[in-house]
Amino acid sequence: MKIDIALKKEIDNSYEVHIGTLEDIHIDAKVAIITNPKVSGLHLHYLLSKLSAKEIYIITVEDGESFKTLATVEKILNNLFEHKFNRSSVLLALGGGVIGDMTGFAASVYQRGVDFIQVPTTLLSQVDASVGGKTGVNNNYGKNLIGAFHQPRAVYIDPHFLSTLDKREYSAGIAEIIKMAVCFDKDFFEWLEKADLHDEAQIITAISRSVKTKAMVVSQDEKERGLRAALNYGHTFGHVIENETAYKKYVHGESVAIGMMMANELASRLGLMKSDEEQRIKKLLLKYKLPVAYDIQDTEAFYEAFFLDKKSLDSKITFIVPHNIGGVELKNDIDKDIVMDVLNTYAGTVRV
Amino acid sequence: MKIDIALKKEIDNSYEVHIGTLEDIHIDAKVAIITNPKVSGLHLHYLLSKLSAKEIYIITVEDGESFKTLATVEKILNNLFEHKFNRSSVLLALGGGVIGDMTGFAASVYQRGVDFIQVPTTLLSQVDASVGGKTGVNNNYGKNLIGAFHQPRAVYIDPHFLSTLDKREYSAGIAEIIKMAVCFDKDFFEWLEKADLHDEAQIITAISRSVKTKAMVVSQDEKERGLRAALNYGHTFGHVIENETAYKKYVHGESVAIGMMMANELASRLGLMKSDEEQRIKKLLLKYKLPVAYDIQDTEAFYEAFFLDKKSLDSKITFIVPHNIGGVELKNDIDKDIVMDVLNTYAGTVRV
Repeated sequence: MKIDIALKKEIDNSYEVHIGTLEDIHIDAKVAIITNPKVSGLHLHYLLSKLSAKEIYIITVEDGESFKTLATVEKILNNLFEHKFNRSSVLLALGGGVIGDMTGFAASVYQRGVDFIQVPTTLLSQVDASVGGKTGVNNNYGKNLIGAFHQPRAVYIDPHFLSTLDKREYSAGIAEIIKMAVCFDKDFFEWLEKADLHDEAQIITAISRSVKTKAMVVSQDEKERGLRAALNYGHTFGHVIENETAYKKYVHGESVAIGMMMANELASRLGLMKSDEEQRIKKLLLKYKLPVAYDIQDTEAFYEAFFLDKKSLDSKITFIVPHNIGGVELKNDIDKDIVMDVLNTYAGTVRV
Repeated sequence: MKIDIALKKEIDNSYEVHIGTLEDIHIDAKVAIITNPKVSGLHLHYLLSKLSAKEIYIITVEDGESFKTLATVEKILNNLFEHKFNRSSVLLALGGGVIGDMTGFAASVYQRGVDFIQVPTTLLSQVDASVGGKTGVNNNYGKNLIGAFHQPRAVYIDPHFLSTLDKREYSAGIAEIIKMAVCFDKDFFEWLEKADLHDEAQIITAISRSVKTKAMVVSQDEKERGLRAALNYGHTFGHVIENETAYKKYVHGESVAIGMMMANELASRLGLMKSDEEQRIKKLLLKYKLPVAYDIQDTEAFYEAFFLDKKSLDSKITFIVPHNIGGVELKNDIDKDIVMDVLNTYAGTVRV
């Protein structure tokens, strides 16, 4: 005998991303702000001047990617239980991608799901991580391997927060902006070539355009069964670089910048990208002092490391290769030889 | 500036519940069977005789409610990473509610979500827990406080597994069947009064009818924003009893049976249930040797304990009270005095 459990339904997870000076936020519930000591010292006062809620409680976790773990999420959850947060309560992430990813994951599992709000304070999280509902933590096997798709209730992006970012972190965010343009938006790329993203009006334009692009991608493929994987352009190579350098030499956006150049090299060898387009991307990355080269010590080990990545646990690696500027292709059938040729280009020869 | 993230879409989480002798199951993916040593010893061989997949791997976790924790889920996840399970892999829960809840939760967070299949081996999980997508673990603050709504891909209910259940566990499952009938289905209740659930054909009928009722409830209210909470009939009181007796004196269905009688007493005092209906429910519970009384030592402490339950973290307790047999009401505005009257009825006076 068969019984059908009918769960075909329309679900509305839509939300708004607010870009500009933080407006007043009123929440008719108990709110837990999740942040870290550094961000709290710089920006909590400003947020609190804009936020009203039934009750506000602050949870501070340690700063850094190495604390983005299930153990930290469990601490957040225990704190919420201790202070009797309920199913109507709201979590608010004040910080960069690490804080946002953990807050979203905690919200997704606390009593089987509560709402959360993103207030990203780094350029990287403003243009990318805060939008789209990917949440999660790292473990010994890799980055973001445990998590959930859990969309925020709203995102507030305020350029005010960027004033305290150091130059490298700021440029790292620009790398993700360039990523969006190369993959999806040629006009935007051309605008970027002329723009100065250290100008406040222009960075707001760039953030808005990146978020709009991300919105388009996420609304078409929320759970990354296809198109959304294109946002990993630069990341397949970048993750290996981050791992090899123990997350110390480069910040995330920097390794993505190098990874984009490697993906461009691959695209070029596949006949998908012309040399002058590669050069234009390189020039744009260099304009913001992003690294474009990396000395691979052991190309075979570098290749093997692809298979440790979540996206390749099924023994195939999906490479995201731009098809000229403004287009992108996902390829999971590229011969090892071709990839090794790319890696060899970076072995002991490339210097910038 | 505002940007809309449009995520309004039709989602189909529908699935089939198969009831009867286990048919051949073919899965075109790598499968991890999650089970415990006891169930494995009794039933793994039988399951393996019916299951074919690309690869099959067995993960055994310790037996019992006290191991339904985030730590055990993390062990399962690490095991999956260690053995290179990917996003297309499938988890299969072979066991009772504890195994099903943990397997479902592990599936919901492994790489942000993989499919899972329920093969419930206890009557309790066959008629209730295996259907509906509630997954999760306990922690120091209470039961099922961390989790997710994650629907299985399919459920296979085979009465063959029930032959090894001891009598108390079997009766505990019957308590949940009676729960369904009292809340939603008067005809079913009347059928139960005449039935013998130790007969295989009749237990299959009872399971099917319970699952159909659950399917109706879950399809109307997957995330328990209203109607689905009615399935907690007997549980508000029952959870306190379980806690007070440290999960040792009663199995879950037994404390639910007592809890139903307490809820009936409350319904009666609210004028929602006639005395003869209370007696019919009591008679049916006693027919399967389920407990219907509990000696409350400290009624004030018992009342306070309601507020530790997840469903009352917002300082209001929702009581589920039957409205005659076949109907149910959710009430969160019952005066403490009336509840205390009910509890006092059970304090040192009731014996069976």
